[in-house]
Amino acid sequence: MAAKTKRKEGGKLCDGLAGFTRSELYENAIHRTLRINQLKKEHNWTQEDFDIAIRCLNYEVGFVIHLSMFIPAIERLATDDQKAKWLPLAESYRILGTYAQTELGHGTNLMALETTATFDPRTDEFVLRTPQLSSMKWWPGSLGKTATHAIVLAQLIIGNKNYGMNPFMVQLRSLEDHMPLPGIIVGDIGAKLGANSNDNGFLILNDVRIPRENMLARNSKVTKDGRYIQTSTNKANYATMVLVRLSIIRWAEDTIKNGSLIAIRYSAVRRQSSLQAGGPEMQVLDYQTQQYKIFPSLAASYALFFTYEAMMKEYEIAYAQIMRGNNQLLGQIHGQLSGLKAFASDLVTYELEMCRRSCGGHGYLKASVVGETLLHTLPLVTVEGDNTVMYLQCARYLLKQIAKALAGQDVDEPTSYLKKDILSYTCPVQKGEHCTNPNYLLKIYTQRAHSAIASVARQLQFDLESGKDQSSAFNNNLVSLVQAAKAHCQLCLMKNFVESVSALERTCSENLASVLRQLCLYFGLHGIVTASGEFLESEAIGLQQLEWIKAEELKSLAAIRPNAVALVDAFDLHDQTVMSALGRYDGNAYQHLFEAAKREPMNQTQVPPAYYKYLRDLIKGQPLAKL
Amino acid sequence: MAAKTKRKEGGKLCDGLAGFTRSELYENAIHRTLRINQLKKEHNWTQEDFDIAIRCLNYEVGFVIHLSMFIPAIERLATDDQKAKWLPLAESYRILGTYAQTELGHGTNLMALETTATFDPRTDEFVLRTPQLSSMKWWPGSLGKTATHAIVLAQLIIGNKNYGMNPFMVQLRSLEDHMPLPGIIVGDIGAKLGANSNDNGFLILNDVRIPRENMLARNSKVTKDGRYIQTSTNKANYATMVLVRLSIIRWAEDTIKNGSLIAIRYSAVRRQSSLQAGGPEMQVLDYQTQQYKIFPSLAASYALFFTYEAMMKEYEIAYAQIMRGNNQLLGQIHGQLSGLKAFASDLVTYELEMCRRSCGGHGYLKASVVGETLLHTLPLVTVEGDNTVMYLQCARYLLKQIAKALAGQDVDEPTSYLKKDILSYTCPVQKGEHCTNPNYLLKIYTQRAHSAIASVARQLQFDLESGKDQSSAFNNNLVSLVQAAKAHCQLCLMKNFVESVSALERTCSENLASVLRQLCLYFGLHGIVTASGEFLESEAIGLQQLEWIKAEELKSLAAIRPNAVALVDAFDLHDQTVMSALGRYDGNAYQHLFEAAKREPMNQTQVPPAYYKYLRDLIKGQPLAKL
Repeated sequence: MAAKTKRKEGGKLCDGLAGFTRSELYENAIHRTLRINQLKKEHNWTQEDFDIAIRCLNYEVGFVIHLSMFIPAIERLATDDQKAKWLPLAESYRILGTYAQTELGHGTNLMALETTATFDPRTDEFVLRTPQLSSMKWWPGSLGKTATHAIVLAQLIIGNKNYGMNPFMVQLRSLEDHMPLPGIIVGDIGAKLGANSNDNGFLILNDVRIPRENMLARNSKVTKDGRYIQTSTNKANYATMVLVRLSIIRWAEDTIKNGSLIAIRYSAVRRQSSLQAGGPEMQVLDYQTQQYKIFPSLAASYALFFTYEAMMKEYEIAYAQIMRGNNQLLGQIHGQLSGLKAFASDLVTYELEMCRRSCGGHGYLKASVVGETLLHTLPLVTVEGDNTVMYLQCARYLLKQIAKALAGQDVDEPTSYLKKDILSYTCPVQKGEHCTNPNYLLKIYTQRAHSAIASVARQLQFDLESGKDQSSAFNNNLVSLVQAAKAHCQLCLMKNFVESVSALERTCSENLASVLRQLCLYFGLHGIVTASGEFLESEAIGLQQLEWIKAEELKSLAAIRPNAVALVDAFDLHDQTVMSALGRYDGNAYQHLFEAAKREPMNQTQVPPAYYKYLRDLIKGQPLAKL
Repeated sequence: MAAKTKRKEGGKLCDGLAGFTRSELYENAIHRTLRINQLKKEHNWTQEDFDIAIRCLNYEVGFVIHLSMFIPAIERLATDDQKAKWLPLAESYRILGTYAQTELGHGTNLMALETTATFDPRTDEFVLRTPQLSSMKWWPGSLGKTATHAIVLAQLIIGNKNYGMNPFMVQLRSLEDHMPLPGIIVGDIGAKLGANSNDNGFLILNDVRIPRENMLARNSKVTKDGRYIQTSTNKANYATMVLVRLSIIRWAEDTIKNGSLIAIRYSAVRRQSSLQAGGPEMQVLDYQTQQYKIFPSLAASYALFFTYEAMMKEYEIAYAQIMRGNNQLLGQIHGQLSGLKAFASDLVTYELEMCRRSCGGHGYLKASVVGETLLHTLPLVTVEGDNTVMYLQCARYLLKQIAKALAGQDVDEPTSYLKKDILSYTCPVQKGEHCTNPNYLLKIYTQRAHSAIASVARQLQFDLESGKDQSSAFNNNLVSLVQAAKAHCQLCLMKNFVESVSALERTCSENLASVLRQLCLYFGLHGIVTASGEFLESEAIGLQQLEWIKAEELKSLAAIRPNAVALVDAFDLHDQTVMSALGRYDGNAYQHLFEAAKREPMNQTQVPPAYYKYLRDLIKGQPLAKL
């Protein structure tokens, strides 16, 4: 039954549909990945073609970690000899890999990981061990049932000395029969809210021995006689981590595009009530409250698109430098992308839920897909570094920058505003119509970020000077530090939006430019209104400005309305990518919902098995069997 | 396999666990309902005992609509003769019922429902018909596979005249073999994000004939010769609708209790990093940012508890009046509970997601249950009236009240503050320490609500006077109307919290009172900070007050910390109710997570079936079978 339904759906993985077992979901993801690999060969796709195919499949594919982390980690952490050995095997899928870092008891604080790799000079081996329950590796993708090998991050121990985290290539399963090797206990960590086709796994290592040459030794190595030698300070692995954060911004963009597309198309189809007695029912998209619910996600889609593009350019410059051994831009790109990863994922998880609500009750149906999209997006706020920790990393970077600025030193370009005299600010909005100038709004965002950063820096300084120890001074300011980082990130998005639209204006038609300007303006206005308390507090605006901005925000809803459907159509997402009954291009939402219901496995019989088991006796007044 | 796992889990319905089919989930819910019905008889439970059992099962039971809507609707809509016929059948489960109102194309706007019941005087029957796709009944609980009967809401047509919505008892399935009767197409609407044990259904009626006496005729009836006679204006059915909204507040309270309990217990177990170099890892609950994430849900749990209790008292008074034919309090209770249903469900869905995030990556595991709780809670924002519409109903009530106040007339007690002179306000907080007085905060909330309501009333008036037609004037103020309703609701919560704690102080120990006062204070401070822009805008506070309030909010986090675990233990929720690996009373979160993973069906074999199908050939470099 399940398999048949899948075929009808064109191979769509309806993750979490209770009719599908995890095994089926898992198998399907592997199937589709092998198939697109075939297609890649058959049609001679470039890597870019392949990446687009993956996006078209909403990232619902297998071997994700093998491709996105295992192979890149070999490339960046292995010596040339090691690469020559492992890369061909990995690239031809003769071994299947994962990257095993996070443990049951530790994630974000990498330094505290408990797994050890102890060098045994007698046998020239490392002995890998997860010493207690909390040390088992937990979460790595494809670890549960797929991976034959893992790059295991472990504390390197030589003698009694801990040399810190190092990467080790560990074979997990026999290449003959896929059985776990001796000393290895491995399995799936259980069902999740989404992404159930992925066999995220656990791994217990009970004194597993690997040859010395399995330590990936590009940056440091252990000699036969047990000496630890650092051979390079190349930061390429940091760059990978930063790249993953960047890719989360892209993921967030893709996901909110899906959400806003579904919400806007359905809201143009759905009709409800009328504000005029006896008038025809209105499209719900015409209600101010509905626009207020959905247009933020539309604006966020475009804002994240422009921010991803801009940050990718910055990343490429930084990466090229890093590969040449120049780490000058690493702090900047790391600080920026830590914050933006958190801000983007916070933004889209919030807005996706608004999209879901805007579909009314039907948004709770899996066939609407908007809820499923939310479920797949929820992990973005914790993966690859919990958002709070990410904001704090960004905040630490901002604190360093403002300290430099105050000391009259140069600061990085993205924080150059910290060099300004904060007191010389006058709000550029001095009458109502000034609110329609995105550049004025940008100045407001800049002042607010500057003020938030300066204020927490001052408070920290004050706390330290009044004798608080560093840890409690820091802890007492964590909330403000997060807010400062958010203010900076929100500014980045607004800045990228404004600058990208300005650049486009030079090449695109005035009609198109004015639509994008309108959306950008709305993004700026809405951002101020949603955090109006903080903007007022920073005195970037006053009460009069807020009144104008709020009025202009509402006006801009009406201005966006005529272009809203076209703005999501412009995402150029095929129905088979979005897979939503509500968000179809043809607008036949009700028909598609009904078709989806007919495919529900429970509907394949008129009378459910529970009738014969319980309901029949109940209805007929017969005594029930022992329950 | 699935069944075995279920037994081990003590009959827990792990809804959405991909290992369970919808049929299994459905069957289990029926099983447990029949079992608790047996227990009720065996142990002579009162209705209150029974309701507590249902809450202990997290409402995951079957026949919910039969008990909560079908039977009550008969009681309130049927004549005595009809009751004598239907109630004994329903109460003994000889018929199983649902309440079929919502349609595929219409929910909240009941007046536009399309199903018709046309009187045929020749046969003395009504002919029920869902004339088009959008008219099919869609969503009613238990409709898909369980219900033998439905109370169908339909437009009554006599001759060519429409007499509006009326309730009709329609038999859907044969009592012999449970097959749908002629003219009836019925089924399940498909998988949802949660609540998958419930067979929410669709219903197409193709000229289904029912005898005239099947129109539930307590309020109006049709005579044999086709005359429509209204016999009563009893508003008991409205009272039911209002009661359902009240029950959603209770549901929201239960749900956020679960969430805050899981988040707080786990945060006391989880350790991460240290703010002191080389210090031991801290309990994450000691971080200011973690407290900032979770304590709002703790405070909300208590706030909703007190508000439910207070509103239940108000409801009981109103209901008693209504049953005596006095509808004086109906507008007040309807206005209040419409808004509070929306506010409570908004609040808890937001805070539950914060609880989930506070559990880090593990919050994404189903075994954590905090995510599952969120999924079960999401529909609360759209069921029984979409929240936006609910806020607008509340806002309409508030507009009426302020109009009365301005005209010097009496207003209802909950809105008595609208009688005050809004201009005579001075912020009661005039120095930092004033922020610790909840009564001062209450005055701030009051002024802000008053200001928001007065402001939108003024704007509406202005728009109408400047010549806008009513519909566009209204549409242009929808967002402000929603904000005004929210301000009033937030005030209600704060007021109930403050007053309930004051009342308790007279009877409980000072130790307990001070803990509750602290939590109440925090609730008040936090509420102002999260909507600080609106509080500033209304001039209920100024920038100086906001600074004091923010500082005091952060201080109160530290004050709550020592009591946080005890405050959730006080909910007295058994592990078997919460069912969370992370939130266990014993604190062994990691052990329970691992135990849950071991039960994952995919872990019952070492090598997955997909290995033999795909991975083996891939790893061994064999050509793959056609994909």
